Amino acid sequence: MFSVSKSSSLLAHRVAFTRSFAGARDKHTLVLVRHGESTWNLANKFTGWYDCPLSEKGHVEAAEGGRLINDAGIKPNIAFTSLQKRAIRTLWHVLEETNRMWIPTIKSWKINERHYGGLQGLDKQETVDKYGKDQVLTWRRSYDIPPPTVDKTSEHHPSNDERYADVADWPEEFTESLATTLDRVVPYWESEIAPELKSGKTVLIAAHGNSLRALVKHLDGIDESEISNLNIPTGTPLVYELDENLKPIPQAGSFLPLTGRYLGDQDAIRNRIEGVKNQTK
Amino acid sequence: MFSVSKSSSLLAHRVAFTRSFAGARDKHTLVLVRHGESTWNLANKFTGWYDCPLSEKGHVEAAEGGRLINDAGIKPNIAFTSLQKRAIRTLWHVLEETNRMWIPTIKSWKINERHYGGLQGLDKQETVDKYGKDQVLTWRRSYDIPPPTVDKTSEHHPSNDERYADVADWPEEFTESLATTLDRVVPYWESEIAPELKSGKTVLIAAHGNSLRALVKHLDGIDESEISNLNIPTGTPLVYELDENLKPIPQAGSFLPLTGRYLGDQDAIRNRIEGVKNQTK
Repeated sequence: MFSVSKSSSLLAHRVAFTRSFAGARDKHTLVLVRHGESTWNLANKFTGWYDCPLSEKGHVEAAEGGRLINDAGIKPNIAFTSLQKRAIRTLWHVLEETNRMWIPTIKSWKINERHYGGLQGLDKQETVDKYGKDQVLTWRRSYDIPPPTVDKTSEHHPSNDERYADVADWPEEFTESLATTLDRVVPYWESEIAPELKSGKTVLIAAHGNSLRALVKHLDGIDESEISNLNIPTGTPLVYELDENLKPIPQAGSFLPLTGRYLGDQDAIRNRIEGVKNQTK
Repeated sequence: MFSVSKSSSLLAHRVAFTRSFAGARDKHTLVLVRHGESTWNLANKFTGWYDCPLSEKGHVEAAEGGRLINDAGIKPNIAFTSLQKRAIRTLWHVLEETNRMWIPTIKSWKINERHYGGLQGLDKQETVDKYGKDQVLTWRRSYDIPPPTVDKTSEHHPSNDERYADVADWPEEFTESLATTLDRVVPYWESEIAPELKSGKTVLIAAHGNSLRALVKHLDGIDESEISNLNIPTGTPLVYELDENLKPIPQAGSFLPLTGRYLGDQDAIRNRIEGVKNQTK
């Protein structure tokens, strides 16, 4: 599907061995894309399930991500995305750039961004000023400590949004941690996405920082403390090759602990991975 | 969902009576949109299943169609489109303008444009010069006389396109008339689209001149000679209100024999309906 860098001969050898062992037809390709910059990324607000669109830069990033997938010769057969327009619009750019607009596309809230509870709509810097840097970093980066909840009187509660009102029996008080995000992402992966890969399809997922972190934590067996420091840059395709049991096949040039490989300028990607960490510094 | 013109009081009374009889919850809304102008409409070529994109004007038309649906207060719950990018891209514009990008979207070749067989890719005027105006008009406008076929050696045969290769057992020689297009559109309507309407959903279909002609022939019981002279303008939403048996409820201001109502400037629409007829004159 795409070429492994020839410079990392040791790992390349391991990949070649694994491929040979697994057999070509048992190798599955999964492409993850985090949506491009949104207007609220730009405004430095906590977004969560607020349905803001891509920024102008976000559109450019998403289209560039699509071109990278196309240039790598990867041809997705089915796509999954969230119910949020910044991910959907990113997917559309990718489908357009890869000339795969016709593939089936499944949308589900199960791969939505983490719900940010009572922080949704607040300015990140103002929240730091009010609650302190450490508290905000805990809400943003701890594995299982969620932000304050919203109740059903809040516009941010999912029971007040047509697209979510009927799909679940929402609790009176709602918020999500990365842990509870994983509790919806992984079952959805197992029941809806994994079977498509096992049937031989190349799968594309356009989603969000935290739903993708939940997924790669599961795929790469990353522990709770390590996933808290892992950042996935926007608009940058992350390509996994999976064996017949959907275990990742290590690839040359991946940024460990991820065994998937980012497409594009590797130095620029390293800088972008670092950049996400600095938003509340 | 949208307001009926107050000037046509007689028909409005009939509509009001029918609505009252059917009961509000048994009224279903269906919105049809023919894709905006494509690059091959512009080039005056027979397109059929050739997958050309929207022209610049086509993008504008599709977005305007979306705004009309939004302004009418119609909120689709599910969308259907073809496997062809000019219809898919039109749908995306409508979903974006109506802020309904999150609704489920089903793509199927069953609502593709009519396959134009051996005429696909040919210039309309050159085809007239070669075969004569009457023959070309017969191929374009007769109900059941299809254009010449393509065989499996042709790039235009569906068995040579990844998106169609696996979905059907394509005949060695392939072409379609409006009659054979209807033979795939109507069963798809019955099995996939009608149940969504009956379950209470407002349905949006973004498709093609001939797949939509096949559908409205079925809905409005238009006969074979009359459907041959009926043109659906591009990018112009056609809104049906259907009773509990999915029979159209006549609406004031419709262009008979269609009982659905076009949204937008009615004089401009009348001109566009006439315009399509003149392409090979």
